[in-house]
Amino acid sequence: MEWKNNLSSMLGIIYPIVQAPMLGITTPEMVAAVSNGGALGSLPIGNIAPSTARTLIQQVRKLTTKPFAVNVFAYDIPISPDQTSFDAMQNMLQGVYTRNGLGVPPIDLKTLSFFSYKDLLPVLIEEKIDIISFTFGIPDAAGVSLLKQSNAKLIGTATSLEEAVLLEQRGMDVIVAQGIEAGGHRGSFLADSFPQVGVMALVPQIVDRVKVPVIAAGGIVDGRGVAAGLMLGASGVQPGSAFLLCNESQATGAHKAAIAAATDTTTRLTRAFSGRWARGLTNTLIAAVEDANVDILPYPYQDALTQPARKASREQDNPSFVAMWAGQAAGLAKERLGAAEILQQMISQTEQLIPSLAATTNNAAAGSPGNHS
Amino acid sequence: MEWKNNLSSMLGIIYPIVQAPMLGITTPEMVAAVSNGGALGSLPIGNIAPSTARTLIQQVRKLTTKPFAVNVFAYDIPISPDQTSFDAMQNMLQGVYTRNGLGVPPIDLKTLSFFSYKDLLPVLIEEKIDIISFTFGIPDAAGVSLLKQSNAKLIGTATSLEEAVLLEQRGMDVIVAQGIEAGGHRGSFLADSFPQVGVMALVPQIVDRVKVPVIAAGGIVDGRGVAAGLMLGASGVQPGSAFLLCNESQATGAHKAAIAAATDTTTRLTRAFSGRWARGLTNTLIAAVEDANVDILPYPYQDALTQPARKASREQDNPSFVAMWAGQAAGLAKERLGAAEILQQMISQTEQLIPSLAATTNNAAAGSPGNHS
Repeated sequence: MEWKNNLSSMLGIIYPIVQAPMLGITTPEMVAAVSNGGALGSLPIGNIAPSTARTLIQQVRKLTTKPFAVNVFAYDIPISPDQTSFDAMQNMLQGVYTRNGLGVPPIDLKTLSFFSYKDLLPVLIEEKIDIISFTFGIPDAAGVSLLKQSNAKLIGTATSLEEAVLLEQRGMDVIVAQGIEAGGHRGSFLADSFPQVGVMALVPQIVDRVKVPVIAAGGIVDGRGVAAGLMLGASGVQPGSAFLLCNESQATGAHKAAIAAATDTTTRLTRAFSGRWARGLTNTLIAAVEDANVDILPYPYQDALTQPARKASREQDNPSFVAMWAGQAAGLAKERLGAAEILQQMISQTEQLIPSLAATTNNAAAGSPGNHS
Repeated sequence: MEWKNNLSSMLGIIYPIVQAPMLGITTPEMVAAVSNGGALGSLPIGNIAPSTARTLIQQVRKLTTKPFAVNVFAYDIPISPDQTSFDAMQNMLQGVYTRNGLGVPPIDLKTLSFFSYKDLLPVLIEEKIDIISFTFGIPDAAGVSLLKQSNAKLIGTATSLEEAVLLEQRGMDVIVAQGIEAGGHRGSFLADSFPQVGVMALVPQIVDRVKVPVIAAGGIVDGRGVAAGLMLGASGVQPGSAFLLCNESQATGAHKAAIAAATDTTTRLTRAFSGRWARGLTNTLIAAVEDANVDILPYPYQDALTQPARKASREQDNPSFVAMWAGQAAGLAKERLGAAEILQQMISQTEQLIPSLAATTNNAAAGSPGNHS
């Protein structure tokens, strides 16, 4: 049986564990703690200004010399919604804010502008980022070519077999298979499709079809999930919720408290916050938007429109208007620990199930009946 | 660490694998082949007349001396829908049948009657069935008591942590944790809740909460899924789609062909066939019912109403009106093999990942960090 892949050696890590990039949650300190622990931290810079992104990258670099990934949202900004649709959503939201005593200044649609992922690529190249992960799509051919010339390893995110096949065709070196369990935004990017496939079904079907290494994401919070993901044929796993409650997380106190009380059915999928489907704990904003008979704006317009309320709610540590992203297994997350300790516990727990995790991708792949080659 | 459970010794099986009961698909031959192979076959008798159920049980007994389970739908029949609702659905369906050239005699609501699960319990006791699994609910206290007096082991089906806790409280000896990936009917039974939790998130949260052994179900088609389910802390796994295409399956040729072509996103959840949520491949009947602005009747009335069309369509081997149940990983199912061979391949594949599967529940549980006791 041919040796199919080796994620750890490709990425220069010891343990085949990738901390999921969580915009608004993940700090440079979290990224560095995970990378220093022998796994791969991921710094999210989607929709962030290039200068700020550069600062964040440099902050990580000050804290670790180990490999880490930078995560970019690879999508094309859609045309602006019309003024009427924008006003309808804004008026409805302002009514909700007022009724809840939250002062949020209105936004002028004409002043909204967004950074393209293409604006971030020069920063990634100048900063010599060698592992870049993408969500919401695939960079265009010119972008992929540019990044490959600088020897970066590219990681794409798929929520279906069809997306995975496309990511491989377009040059991604690794594919994250994001199951329906995952918290935060769904990476789905094909029009008119909304895959809702569980990790157990998604991972082996993708592993059987693509040649590149696959990383399982969704519902993986402790060593049991890590071991299960690797058994499914994945070369690595990408926990996110596991790090929501760690000391380095930017989640608010209210968000952390809600996660600590979460169970399997506490989360839901919603487009209310951003215009894209994402999984989180329900709150006032989600209920208001979903109950209102007002069209949700496309991403990133809805996201921009709810941003001031999220900020105001965060400052008050009020859970009502904060996006409390969480996966279906977030209730298993450990509290009041550093990211390094969470990672270490995850590794120890996995090693009880799979001795010598550090060499697991070799062993698992060599023994895996899913590798047909 | 205390030894928490041992599914294999409790059920008298060698391998911790349970063939999922699939009404309309599973034959006595399939059940016996699986049980003779050292795993646990499951004979579905939900909604079947007691005399027929007895015949089926006796057929299994002629083919195996090994343990097998009998599966019963433990629900209370709801009050009849009103004549107007019934007529609206029937008229809509008759129009669809006519347009598709399918002759289906109409049904008179007043002639419909259903067997209760309580009618089946005397048969189970007389036939000395020692493993009984339940779907759609929990038998009442009298039923549980009666079955326990006859020393039967009872298996309940949960689709959420809340359901699992209730099943344990009501005396179930084993709990099947059915993830959103699973094909066929969802076992959900709590009112106003429709859990859609993936196996990766569902299983460890249930394992941490209940003391009885847990069986993982959903998306498990080959050895990778078996190994993953056990890593999650389950004491066993329950594959269904894996056996859809086997020689002993009653699936029609058209159904088998559609499964063989299925991918991760081919299935959907629908109430169109039975009134209960179930996962299957879409076809003319599903599309017609979901597009029509007609209320779907409660189970088992909708089920009874679509039954003649399913039968007629099956006789023509026409996929348009057959319920083509399938899980999200059904595309991994092997074709043109006997159930014994499918089971043997699954075991061999698992043993490449977990040596000595026959003793796995011991080893996995002893090493499992999820067992807090």
